[in-house]
Amino acid sequence: MMRFKATVQYDGSMFKGWQKQPSGRCVQTEIESVLTRINKVPIHISGSGRTDAGVHALGQVFHFDNVVNMDEKQLFRALNTLLPDDIKISEIQSVDSNFHARFDVVSKTYEYQLNMGTYNLFERNYVYQYNEPLDLQAMHDAMKSFVGTHDFTSFNATGLDEIKNQVRTITDFDLIVTGDHLRFVITGDGFLRYMVRMIVATCVACGSGKCDAEEITQMLKAVDKNSVSYNIDACGLYLKKVNYK
Amino acid sequence: MMRFKATVQYDGSMFKGWQKQPSGRCVQTEIESVLTRINKVPIHISGSGRTDAGVHALGQVFHFDNVVNMDEKQLFRALNTLLPDDIKISEIQSVDSNFHARFDVVSKTYEYQLNMGTYNLFERNYVYQYNEPLDLQAMHDAMKSFVGTHDFTSFNATGLDEIKNQVRTITDFDLIVTGDHLRFVITGDGFLRYMVRMIVATCVACGSGKCDAEEITQMLKAVDKNSVSYNIDACGLYLKKVNYK
Repeated sequence: MMRFKATVQYDGSMFKGWQKQPSGRCVQTEIESVLTRINKVPIHISGSGRTDAGVHALGQVFHFDNVVNMDEKQLFRALNTLLPDDIKISEIQSVDSNFHARFDVVSKTYEYQLNMGTYNLFERNYVYQYNEPLDLQAMHDAMKSFVGTHDFTSFNATGLDEIKNQVRTITDFDLIVTGDHLRFVITGDGFLRYMVRMIVATCVACGSGKCDAEEITQMLKAVDKNSVSYNIDACGLYLKKVNYK
Repeated sequence: MMRFKATVQYDGSMFKGWQKQPSGRCVQTEIESVLTRINKVPIHISGSGRTDAGVHALGQVFHFDNVVNMDEKQLFRALNTLLPDDIKISEIQSVDSNFHARFDVVSKTYEYQLNMGTYNLFERNYVYQYNEPLDLQAMHDAMKSFVGTHDFTSFNATGLDEIKNQVRTITDFDLIVTGDHLRFVITGDGFLRYMVRMIVATCVACGSGKCDAEEITQMLKAVDKNSVSYNIDACGLYLKKVNYK
């Protein structure tokens, strides 16, 4: 038995998310079913964390213990041959049996893509369409309010009974502008459910004049699930990179 | 009753093509069903021509006679509200009752997109993936062989019993290169079934050294459905523009 770390890309449009669900396609099940087919015994995979329905991945990471004797290249080829065309393994490496895709995460980077220009039909599942111009300076100011260590209770949908400590650190938050196309790139030590989407939605609200950086500081201080009402569609969200030691 | 000319974009990935089929989604039926709903009487639309399963449109054109009294703006809004999210009307204008979307066509422009670089999962339904570098000069030479008036019997799948005269004129054929991403843009007075795909496939074969410009001239001269074996996936093909007087 040998432990492998795999990096995977997927198009979230046709998935109910990463994690097993009672019904509907999910990424984890698709990968486990292929690994089970290769090994002829049930194989379980552990992801770095979940992604929600419609959310894409450019660099999700998972680990698993392979039973049959295969090297990285063989496993890479077998997986990509058998996986459906909306999931693709981009890297695979054998790792120490202590490696854990979830517990060993140092930080994660997410990206949110938004188009404020002409609607592009072919990007409807990949880029969020916003039909008004946004004030970039107001968004930059809003983004700065999130950087640093904060209690993000107000900015996520995870119950306090599920995860008590909702303090997280955002180390980087950049906005890459290419014409009318915006990419919000955010890195932090951990993200709670809907956290990236609620943060981006609030920045967009600031860009459209509905909110400002000072109010964000108040919302953070409120530590109250009812203080933020902004959320944004999953289609623009990508899990870009999971960083390990 | 008033005749309208409409320009439409669609993502062909989830369609069996433009024209009504015994089963499966098709673009014509989706649009007719929305117009029928608006008019409360059956409305038929006439397209500039068919597109095959998986082929996209940036500027397909159709005409129809609307029964209820509506202007261009109202019709534009009603159609885009009711159409599924993979079909979008980009322009609508009232026209003379003699206008015919098919018979009045002067020329059509198609585009074929190909990527010879790293596979991009998110483009799998929109750009054809070719995993080897192609010789651009050899492809340019190949493309030149097609420009002009030729009998294209060898380069299409339409039976000679269906359409006797398979002489067509290609007026422009350009290759736009952006890094590893290629766009073949071809304009002509008419295209027969699979004609663009067979022409592009043959140019790609020349780019990979399997064929050359001299052989293309021979294939054209052969006027024989068995002389060309090259075809290429529908996913990279776009009906870009239909030109009228």
